[in-house]
Amino acid sequence: MAQYNAEPLERLINNFSRLNGVGRKGATRMAYQVLAMDEKDAAEFAAAIMDVHSKIKRCPVCRNFTDKDICPICSSPKRDDSVICIVENPRDVATFEKTREYKGLYHVLHGLISPMDGITAEQLTVKELLARLQDDKVKEVIMATSSTIEGETTAMYISRLVKPLGIKVTRLAYGLPVGASLEYADEVTLYRALEGRREI
Amino acid sequence: MAQYNAEPLERLINNFSRLNGVGRKGATRMAYQVLAMDEKDAAEFAAAIMDVHSKIKRCPVCRNFTDKDICPICSSPKRDDSVICIVENPRDVATFEKTREYKGLYHVLHGLISPMDGITAEQLTVKELLARLQDDKVKEVIMATSSTIEGETTAMYISRLVKPLGIKVTRLAYGLPVGASLEYADEVTLYRALEGRREI
Repeated sequence: MAQYNAEPLERLINNFSRLNGVGRKGATRMAYQVLAMDEKDAAEFAAAIMDVHSKIKRCPVCRNFTDKDICPICSSPKRDDSVICIVENPRDVATFEKTREYKGLYHVLHGLISPMDGITAEQLTVKELLARLQDDKVKEVIMATSSTIEGETTAMYISRLVKPLGIKVTRLAYGLPVGASLEYADEVTLYRALEGRREI
Repeated sequence: MAQYNAEPLERLINNFSRLNGVGRKGATRMAYQVLAMDEKDAAEFAAAIMDVHSKIKRCPVCRNFTDKDICPICSSPKRDDSVICIVENPRDVATFEKTREYKGLYHVLHGLISPMDGITAEQLTVKELLARLQDDKVKEVIMATSSTIEGETTAMYISRLVKPLGIKVTRLAYGLPVGASLEYADEVTLYRALEGRREI
């Protein structure tokens, strides 16, 4: 395709469109917006991109992303260190924190076991999880991986390793999404919702 | 809202979400993707943002964005310098170029007259356009602003300045979008399509 934009613009469009979910049109709009920003805002944007790389590392305890030595959750005295919630990635931690209900700690796997994609337990932070469970503080591990095949496989795999340590392993409840109409629920979800029914 | 992501991540999310059409969720996804990039790609992304600011300026002839002294279209000997197509912004130039049909030159207004938003002709590049029309090369000016109130007002305003110079002023045709069903055409468009009908 011929190039209709000046080269530096074209280059920025290519950078934006390399992001998943951003098409050529969206990337073009974004690049023109960056051009329309004042110099200061553009410099701030570029610096933010560089900083996210240089300043963010994994928390040595829970493996979540952090710019501190130990992440604020792991280092908080207010959190209940007898419960660890196992999630696939750092975004899931942010999602849980938004509920403001969970007061325990996390462990970020950075992936799920997926033989199809050649991802084994060794590539995840399972070893690091088991190391955390060595002291007797932890009483419960909540498997909060998604209810996909990979999520289930990973939950099953980890629960088999954790249970022998005498630690309770739980799984997030399955059921109808809040606010969703019965009409649109698939059979498996509905069956799980029925199975998990509670007295009110 | 409490902050659930590490500060440098949060900062990058804020930068992304400042772009129009990018919500908080999209910005979060993008920021995590930047974090997942390797160092080299992130540096290239940041540099592209800086460069678009330092290297791009307006072509002194047509006012389109360019990184050259004079933009490739204005400096090309292959373009017909007797026709100038007036567009609202640089993106419109790229859109026209994609059709590969137009061989004339452009003039970028960088906006439309809009009393509601306090934008007058003085803030656009109208003066620069009139200066370009001083030599006798230009025979036709095509008003290619969109068919909104602002686009029409601007087209009318400029045509009144250009016509006295003895230059032909034309407007893009109105009509049905190609491939569109009659059923979905609004009455005004349909009326304009009827008015502009041609013998086949």
